[in-house]
Amino acid sequence: MSDVDAESEYLLGAYEVLAESVRRLIDVTIRTEAAPESVFAAAQDVDRIADGLGTRLMPGSFGVRDRADGQAIASGNVVIGVRNPVAPPLVVHHEPDGSVWSEFILGAAYEGPPGHVHGGVCALVLDHVLGATAHKPGRPAFTGTLTMRYLRPTRLGPLRAEGRIERVEGAKTFAVGHIADRAGATVEAHGVFIHPKGARNAHV
Amino acid sequence: MSDVDAESEYLLGAYEVLAESVRRLIDVTIRTEAAPESVFAAAQDVDRIADGLGTRLMPGSFGVRDRADGQAIASGNVVIGVRNPVAPPLVVHHEPDGSVWSEFILGAAYEGPPGHVHGGVCALVLDHVLGATAHKPGRPAFTGTLTMRYLRPTRLGPLRAEGRIERVEGAKTFAVGHIADRAGATVEAHGVFIHPKGARNAHV
Repeated sequence: MSDVDAESEYLLGAYEVLAESVRRLIDVTIRTEAAPESVFAAAQDVDRIADGLGTRLMPGSFGVRDRADGQAIASGNVVIGVRNPVAPPLVVHHEPDGSVWSEFILGAAYEGPPGHVHGGVCALVLDHVLGATAHKPGRPAFTGTLTMRYLRPTRLGPLRAEGRIERVEGAKTFAVGHIADRAGATVEAHGVFIHPKGARNAHV
Repeated sequence: MSDVDAESEYLLGAYEVLAESVRRLIDVTIRTEAAPESVFAAAQDVDRIADGLGTRLMPGSFGVRDRADGQAIASGNVVIGVRNPVAPPLVVHHEPDGSVWSEFILGAAYEGPPGHVHGGVCALVLDHVLGATAHKPGRPAFTGTLTMRYLRPTRLGPLRAEGRIERVEGAKTFAVGHIADRAGATVEAHGVFIHPKGARNAHV
């Protein structure tokens, strides 16, 4: 590992650690029963931290960047971004047969109906996981259409999402998949993902 | 306003203020270019705040609660929850003709393709906004099916989402809508939302 790579790893580590701390703060912000004075004081402390870190900000958003080894990283991505506290973050595993899967935990921050995952968050996860079947290094895919069928509510807690390719027609990948809680599949999805000509680093 | 109501309002105010501070911290966590030592130190400060607020936590998630005036509040909801830092949060406006709309800003925390909103976040917003056409006080609706058609990428920044009822058949509401950036509609959606028998406070 070169000195430059070691430094980037150290830096990425710092951002990951911060994002993980902020994820816990998000959960606590929703669930705390602390007295108003403590909550107002905490808000001021959070503002001071943001002021400090905010003196040097990249313009716009994180985007997608090339690592030293040529692989694209999307650390700011809302689903998989390790330095985005909104992302659970998902780790998507690719199998040799082209299928993909991810196991992850969704807590209070992703709630819709009481005790359950928001139906739209299931759609967010399924868009990403199904899209990942079509996404190849240097050959990103955009969502064309996406259809969800809700079988029953999805419990907050440990979840699994799966996607597989049904067929490929030219630039179009037809993918199917589902999300499941401990009692089985809760939402089924199918989607069409398209490789635009000449685009790169563009997936979802 | 009773003393109890005044106290709840003061308390809700504190949680809202904290959630707004944490939203800014999320953005800064993704975009900061501060040195690793400062970032590690910030993570420790965030941990200390979470420790303090975390000594009294409600079990599970926020859920949906009845206000003194009988209206349901979903302060922890991932789309509209005022004390959920993951929520933008959306304010959904209901028109007399049954249509709904919302204007909101999505920044770096909602990114998919560089500079653009994750396609799945568009699905999350559309699920909620279309579902809101079917949702009546005390008569919640669950998503049955939801289909998205992506016309082009959605720029991060100010956005508008709209939904309207196409038709109602018994317990089913058929809704259509879209999300738009400054250059016009980017994603179209249609969905079927179902009022389960006897359920309440259950929407998305």
